[in-house]
Amino acid sequence: MIKGFPKPMARLIEAFKKMPGIGAHSAQKLTFYILQASRKETDSLIRSIGEVKQNVRFCRTCNNLSDEDICSICSDTARDPKLVCVVEDPNGVIAMEKSGVYNGVYHVLLGELSPIDGVGPDELKITDLVKRVGTDGVEEVILATDFTTEGETTALYLLEVLKPFDIKVSRLARGVPVGASLEFADSATLQRALEERKEA
Amino acid sequence: MIKGFPKPMARLIEAFKKMPGIGAHSAQKLTFYILQASRKETDSLIRSIGEVKQNVRFCRTCNNLSDEDICSICSDTARDPKLVCVVEDPNGVIAMEKSGVYNGVYHVLLGELSPIDGVGPDELKITDLVKRVGTDGVEEVILATDFTTEGETTALYLLEVLKPFDIKVSRLARGVPVGASLEFADSATLQRALEERKEA
Repeated sequence: MIKGFPKPMARLIEAFKKMPGIGAHSAQKLTFYILQASRKETDSLIRSIGEVKQNVRFCRTCNNLSDEDICSICSDTARDPKLVCVVEDPNGVIAMEKSGVYNGVYHVLLGELSPIDGVGPDELKITDLVKRVGTDGVEEVILATDFTTEGETTALYLLEVLKPFDIKVSRLARGVPVGASLEFADSATLQRALEERKEA
Repeated sequence: MIKGFPKPMARLIEAFKKMPGIGAHSAQKLTFYILQASRKETDSLIRSIGEVKQNVRFCRTCNNLSDEDICSICSDTARDPKLVCVVEDPNGVIAMEKSGVYNGVYHVLLGELSPIDGVGPDELKITDLVKRVGTDGVEEVILATDFTTEGETTALYLLEVLKPFDIKVSRLARGVPVGASLEFADSATLQRALEERKEA
């Protein structure tokens, strides 16, 4: 308990300090903000927190976050359900959607294979993916897991699991990021970019 | 609205983004925290916010933040009510309390004189201070406003206002911070430290 603060403020500071990236100083600043904010603003914050806890769940089809049983992407008839992009978590969906060029649907694994952390295939939504591929008329699965050791392992595993199906399985291209200077690209990336070079 | 997030999450992200020091990325991280936190934790956060808005007010005596009409420092009979430390805001009280060596009471001005920002003596709790000094048997007032232009102006103004009273008025010492290397002390501070040097 911090000396000098009234108890309700000290309690709120402690609550804020539990949040990621919020230290003692930020927690104090946030608490002063709450104190000085209009009642309307704090009521809206409280309501928003409650609604996230109450209404946000995982989409029954793709495991993305949703406020309905089926998420807005899966239920969008303008999108192509035969093209499924596999991402590790909801942040992957956000990143892909920001690119603005993808018009298929998603499958969120809710994790990545990491034997060291005890995350095996059963911990991920892989059975669901196999079921979707087997019954939903999927024509292509794009593996968009991270390009880290765990992400690559997950992609390799999925490739193996999806082999029995008569579908196309692709992986996002590796290479030098757009806008990046060659000087700052790491050698592994340059190696890949060279191997996977395209005719201009 | 951020594409790809369910509406309740997008609304919570917007609410977090209004808070000081919270950008788009932090707001997303905090929202994911809320989503994954236990119901107990989020309920406690919601309750703490509500209690701060409901119960925290200014102490009737010293204007410090308090959850009672009279704050815990003013009502502490172990403290010396004849010694009053004048600070600009509740953060000043916290800083002094952290030092652990002050046993008097406080007077919080809730601001500092700043003609440029339209803050004159009437905007601060100066009349209250004069009233306290005149009636409460105060023996010493310690001016602990900031050592900035505005803080110094405020201290000078208070010195003038308190002149008619038969009390001691002091100002916190200026000098080289404890633990600081001379090399990094600015010239104005060194000048003061030299002028106000004490016999060793």
